[in-house]
Amino acid sequence: MDTPLSDANGVDCLYYAPGAASMLVHWLLIELDVPHQLQRVDTAAGAQKTPEYLALNPNGVVPTLVTGGTPMYEAAALAMTLADRHPQAGLAPAPGSALRPQYTQWMFHLANAVQPLFRLWWYPQEAAGAAQADAVLAHTAPRIEAAWSRIDAQLAARGPYLLGEEVSTPDFYLTMLMRWSRAMPRPATDWPALAQLAQAMRARPSFRTLYQREGLEEWA
Amino acid sequence: MDTPLSDANGVDCLYYAPGAASMLVHWLLIELDVPHQLQRVDTAAGAQKTPEYLALNPNGVVPTLVTGGTPMYEAAALAMTLADRHPQAGLAPAPGSALRPQYTQWMFHLANAVQPLFRLWWYPQEAAGAAQADAVLAHTAPRIEAAWSRIDAQLAARGPYLLGEEVSTPDFYLTMLMRWSRAMPRPATDWPALAQLAQAMRARPSFRTLYQREGLEEWA
Repeated sequence: MDTPLSDANGVDCLYYAPGAASMLVHWLLIELDVPHQLQRVDTAAGAQKTPEYLALNPNGVVPTLVTGGTPMYEAAALAMTLADRHPQAGLAPAPGSALRPQYTQWMFHLANAVQPLFRLWWYPQEAAGAAQADAVLAHTAPRIEAAWSRIDAQLAARGPYLLGEEVSTPDFYLTMLMRWSRAMPRPATDWPALAQLAQAMRARPSFRTLYQREGLEEWA
Repeated sequence: MDTPLSDANGVDCLYYAPGAASMLVHWLLIELDVPHQLQRVDTAAGAQKTPEYLALNPNGVVPTLVTGGTPMYEAAALAMTLADRHPQAGLAPAPGSALRPQYTQWMFHLANAVQPLFRLWWYPQEAAGAAQADAVLAHTAPRIEAAWSRIDAQLAARGPYLLGEEVSTPDFYLTMLMRWSRAMPRPATDWPALAQLAQAMRARPSFRTLYQREGLEEWA
């Protein structure tokens, strides 16, 4: 694999796979108008487990963002870092502001309580072996639905965005996770406040650019 | 359940269960010398699933920290919020500083990639049903061990703490997670750099106070 670290102009380089967790970082790079290069990682061929990639990101997953010459990982952390670096976009309450604790809470809620359920959904064999994959799927779908119910209740009571009237970084994160549910028995858009949020987020010009650049079509 | 929201003096109230994820928040309240009340939640009796508790925290887990009259959740988010509110303790690189991205990365790595493995370890029946619990445990132990190997390599190369020479909030988080592995086939302290970190963190006076207040004995 080529490993184009930040070039002489200090342009960030995102290692990504279409539609994967790297999508959150890619979307924000576009939304925030951050100059960047893209390096596609062929995850179907296991490119994220090669020694070259593991030297960048020992976890063997996308995304990795090489920024300032340093490879960084964890999509949610990168999202928070990018939003803080570009405060003019207003996607993060300023550190120390009244909304910052709720903002941080939602980022961690999605990272700790929701995204790991999708790891079970996409890689059920990891949890208990291939023979138990169907049992994992059967147990995971209702847990994801329960997460949608809780978040939908939040949005219905205090939305339309997770922090209220204004869009912020966790809404981008939530939208990526909702997209991952598109072929599930009950996709996130079965819940009305979630559907409304998904619609608003998909209408952003940055979302269309993201789809073009990653070659995505479903859930447009 | 009594629900002592912040009192007239604005004292934070932590809903906790001994040794659970609330331990991270409790430890930091002590370390940062934040006045607080404690409200024990009898998780063995299911008190975290009562309507009264769910009104505070719809996720039905500990911790909840009522702060400024508002119930907040997600242990890692609370830890970051508390560390930022008390900068004099030096447990968080300042927003915008060079180390802040790595700090954020480690908090999310632990929240997204490590702590969910312990959810599988402690509640294996959740993932695939009671009949598959042993299969879940058998698959989860090596994944936790792989996480320890990666983090130990980080500490050996650039420690002794996750951010280098100075202790910070993710070290407290990591210590809680290491403690959870104490009865596993290979506890975290089998890895030398992790063992050294655990030893340093357990030597802090705040750790002994935490143990006294939560009535803990193991892994002292």
